[in-house]
Amino acid sequence: MAKVGFWGLGSMGLGMADSLVRDGHDVCGHDPRDVVLEGGCDLPNGDLDVAVIAVLNAAQTESVLEAILPDLRSGAVVVACATVSPDFARDMADRCEKRQIRYLDAPISGGAKRAADGDLSIMASGSTAAFDAAKPALDAMSRTVFHMGEAVGAGSAMKAVHQVLAGTHIATMAEAMVFGVTQGIDPARFMEVLPQCGGTSWMLENRGPHVRDGDYTPHSAVEIWIKDLGIIQDIAADAAIELPMVQAALNGYRKAVEMGLGREDDAAIAKVYAAQAGVDLPKGKA
Amino acid sequence: MAKVGFWGLGSMGLGMADSLVRDGHDVCGHDPRDVVLEGGCDLPNGDLDVAVIAVLNAAQTESVLEAILPDLRSGAVVVACATVSPDFARDMADRCEKRQIRYLDAPISGGAKRAADGDLSIMASGSTAAFDAAKPALDAMSRTVFHMGEAVGAGSAMKAVHQVLAGTHIATMAEAMVFGVTQGIDPARFMEVLPQCGGTSWMLENRGPHVRDGDYTPHSAVEIWIKDLGIIQDIAADAAIELPMVQAALNGYRKAVEMGLGREDDAAIAKVYAAQAGVDLPKGKA
Repeated sequence: MAKVGFWGLGSMGLGMADSLVRDGHDVCGHDPRDVVLEGGCDLPNGDLDVAVIAVLNAAQTESVLEAILPDLRSGAVVVACATVSPDFARDMADRCEKRQIRYLDAPISGGAKRAADGDLSIMASGSTAAFDAAKPALDAMSRTVFHMGEAVGAGSAMKAVHQVLAGTHIATMAEAMVFGVTQGIDPARFMEVLPQCGGTSWMLENRGPHVRDGDYTPHSAVEIWIKDLGIIQDIAADAAIELPMVQAALNGYRKAVEMGLGREDDAAIAKVYAAQAGVDLPKGKA
Repeated sequence: MAKVGFWGLGSMGLGMADSLVRDGHDVCGHDPRDVVLEGGCDLPNGDLDVAVIAVLNAAQTESVLEAILPDLRSGAVVVACATVSPDFARDMADRCEKRQIRYLDAPISGGAKRAADGDLSIMASGSTAAFDAAKPALDAMSRTVFHMGEAVGAGSAMKAVHQVLAGTHIATMAEAMVFGVTQGIDPARFMEVLPQCGGTSWMLENRGPHVRDGDYTPHSAVEIWIKDLGIIQDIAADAAIELPMVQAALNGYRKAVEMGLGREDDAAIAKVYAAQAGVDLPKGKA
């Protein structure tokens, strides 16, 4: 069993840290907010085998890494889970390498429920030594771990590809549901029929019920897509390519932020399309 | 068992007609091409209980209906499966009603394989009498039959919503796969990882392998999306709403037609994005 330090106990991180505790690892959780993690915390950073950083973005990842790097022992593995650019991941790995710290570029997929169940997908890249050392911790948090290669950055590249799909599918679900309302199809009927058909997606089945129920409790917020699709458009600009589907989705998320919906669940992009179409969506319980 | 006339023995229709034969119905198939349907054909149109029209589009549906309407007996049910506008479906139903013929607006979803397996989803609208009379035939062709309501047009409306999703998901799969190639992720790796993640869709899992294998044999052709997304944009224009995700996808399919890919499998939209990005996709066997 590994000694694991865990930074970032948000909607994803808390479930991941709990999964590590459940699996018998010695886990010490850290978060700026008061979050209670079962399992206590008297692990000095210098004793850690694995440091998992599951914070919101690149800036927070860098800030945590800078704070803990001086204390980590040689050979410890940093597992960085935020969605970042492959270039950023390579930069962080270089800084770790200078101190004989191993770095695993290890973005995650699956949402808060799968995080809580230890059932995520992890797309990891980094040396086989780093991968093998982190494997017990990765296994505790996930259903499937893909080793994307020895070169740090490959995991973040796959995560970027994943976010192209996920962010676009949520926008498409919202557009289709609002279009349905204009044609007399209510969201409950939509959710009854379309998951049975070739038009379904994981995101439709996961986020569609939020619109149907008028429940925009933020499991994953609109503003995360501004960040993630922004990273993707930066990568695309560097590669001199266009991503028209991503751009159309990003336009919708930006309008949602303009409407003051940035902190709502990302399914709230449906409110943008509903406002444009002049139709009402279901209201949730007050 | 029903006496069924079947018009349109294409990639969907032949499998549907075979499913009817397998289920014990007395089926007579018609197609301008030489298509062999097991089960023979000595059924006069005047004896039919059910006339299934599974042709490509509204114009072909109208042409078949005009040809057979004078011969159908009072009380027979026309089951119209092409993707058409709700207005067109209502027009056809009116013409049938004037001759005491029942009309079921019954678009389908699922693709050629599920058609062959009698495993489609059918979104039917029309009177309960029409629905009940056609039910044994519908059941033979499908896993799930949704009765969308008594008013003809509701089935076509749901199919339009379905095509918003399906057409957009194929374009998104293609964009994401090409983006991955620019980031060093080959299509085989893409298809290994992403179906396990929250970014997956039915269309990604169904059409992605065509790009991975470089096999653009047309199970469903690019040009069908010009028609279907065009119908959807017409409906949207009538309702004075915008569908930005559909528009972005339709732009891609139109470019595919300009590149001479209209008759290839719709996954060939990936060739548009690959050409724009300046990357190569897998080549199939010659």
